[in-house]
Amino acid sequence: MKPKSLLLAHQLRNKNVLVIGAGDVALTRLKKLIPTGCKITIIGPETNPKLKQLYCSHCDPITGIDDQWRINGGVYRHISEEFQDGHLSLYQDGMNSNWALILVCIPDGVLSKHIHSLVKLKFGQQQLINVADDKPLCDVYFGANWEDESLQILISSNGAGPRFTALLRDEIGQMLSELQLSKSVENLQVLRSSVQNHAKGPKSTKFRMQWMSRCTEIFGVRHCHKMDINSLVNLFQEMYSEGTLEFPPDTISKYSI
Amino acid sequence: MKPKSLLLAHQLRNKNVLVIGAGDVALTRLKKLIPTGCKITIIGPETNPKLKQLYCSHCDPITGIDDQWRINGGVYRHISEEFQDGHLSLYQDGMNSNWALILVCIPDGVLSKHIHSLVKLKFGQQQLINVADDKPLCDVYFGANWEDESLQILISSNGAGPRFTALLRDEIGQMLSELQLSKSVENLQVLRSSVQNHAKGPKSTKFRMQWMSRCTEIFGVRHCHKMDINSLVNLFQEMYSEGTLEFPPDTISKYSI
Repeated sequence: MKPKSLLLAHQLRNKNVLVIGAGDVALTRLKKLIPTGCKITIIGPETNPKLKQLYCSHCDPITGIDDQWRINGGVYRHISEEFQDGHLSLYQDGMNSNWALILVCIPDGVLSKHIHSLVKLKFGQQQLINVADDKPLCDVYFGANWEDESLQILISSNGAGPRFTALLRDEIGQMLSELQLSKSVENLQVLRSSVQNHAKGPKSTKFRMQWMSRCTEIFGVRHCHKMDINSLVNLFQEMYSEGTLEFPPDTISKYSI
Repeated sequence: MKPKSLLLAHQLRNKNVLVIGAGDVALTRLKKLIPTGCKITIIGPETNPKLKQLYCSHCDPITGIDDQWRINGGVYRHISEEFQDGHLSLYQDGMNSNWALILVCIPDGVLSKHIHSLVKLKFGQQQLINVADDKPLCDVYFGANWEDESLQILISSNGAGPRFTALLRDEIGQMLSELQLSKSVENLQVLRSSVQNHAKGPKSTKFRMQWMSRCTEIFGVRHCHKMDINSLVNLFQEMYSEGTLEFPPDTISKYSI
C-alpha cells in the first residue's frame, strides 16, 4: 500500500521562510504564506508583476527590506538577484538555519537539486524543504485549501490530479458555507468561557469538558449557530449542581434562539 | 486578525520520528504516523497496553528494536525507560538531527518545556516539534482527519473545539462517501496515462494538461466515476489531431458507462 501523508497545521508567525524564485509558482506560495504572519525573504531577479505589486511594493528599493511588513501585509525582504549559495546562510546562527521552511520555485531542475542537497547538508534532514515540480525532493506537499474565518481545510491527493482536488474543495466549501460555521464556532467559544466562569477549579474541569462535548454533539454541526447561550448557561448550572450529564430530551428546540 | 496556519502534507516514508511518552496521547499520534511508513522511536517506561499490543509487539525484548518494522506495521524501536537528554542524539550526525519530527506526549509540563528548549538549541529552529498540551511550544498542530484510499483531508480549527471539528469531519466524510471518489480518482489516473501514450513529446504536454483539466471540469466530482475511458481516449485523439479543446455539448451522457 502506498504510504499516506501526515497532515499538519504549521504555526509560522514571525518565523523566517525562504522563497527562492519570484514567478508564478512563488505567487501561489505567497498567497498561502502571507496570512500566517511569517517573515518572508524572497529571492529572484525577474518578479511576477502581480507578486511585486501585491507583496513587494513596500520593500526599500536599495535594501529590499520592509521593516513594516507586518502592517503592510507583504514580504519582509525582496532580494532582486539570482540565487547564490550564500543566501541560505542569511540568518544562520550556528546550528540554527533560522528558516522554518524553504520553498524552491524556479524553472531549473538542476539548480533546484543543487539547492536541495546543499540545504540538507548545511541544516540537516530536519530542515523542511519543498521543491516545485520535483516530488521526490519534497518533505511537504501543498494541496487544495478551503477556509473561512474559523476553519481551515487541506485536501491532499496523491494522484487525483489538481483539477479534481480543486473541484472537491469547491464541493466541500459549498456544503460548509450552508452551515453558518462562524456563528457556530463563536457560540461554542462564548459558551465554553461562560461555563468556565460558573465552574472553576480543577475538579470541575472534567465535568465541564464532558458537558461541552455532549452539548456540541446534541446540537450537531447544523444547529450550533442557533444556540441560546444564556439559557444554556443556566442549564449548565442546574446540571452541574445536580452532577448530571443527562440533557433534557428536547434540548435543541428549548435552547435555541 | 489572528494568523492562519499553513496546512501541509508531510512525506515521512523511512524518515526517523521521535515520540517521547507512550501513553494515551502517544497512541493517537502513532495511529496517524504508522500509515506514513516512518521509522518510529518511542520512549517511555509505562506503555499504554493497546499501544504496546498494536505497535510494539514485535520489538526485541532486549534491544527494543524490530528490524522488520516495515512488514510488521509497528514502531522501529521501543525504549522502555524514562526520557534522558541523550535520547535526542540517538541518530545524530553532525548538523543532522535525523529526526523529521519530534512529538512530546508526556504529562509533565516542566520536562516538556526542557525538552523543547534543548531540541531547538541542539538542532536549530528548523527542527519541527509538537508538545502535547502546550500550544505555544508547537511548530505544528494536529487536527481532525478524514481519508479514503485516494484522498486525505485535514480539518484545523483554532478554537472551535475538538468535538465540533470531529463532527464536521464526519459530515464532510458522509458527503464524500456518496461521491465514489476512489473510482473517480482511478478513472482520472487511467485516462491521464492513456492520453499520455497517445500524445508524447514536450509540445503535446500543454494540450494534454488543458484537455485533462477541461475534461475533469465537465464531468465534475459527481460523474468522473462513470467515465468511459476507451471512448474518451478516442475523443482525445480526434480533438488532438484537430487541435481543439471544444468538447461536444453532450460529453457526459455520450462518454459515460
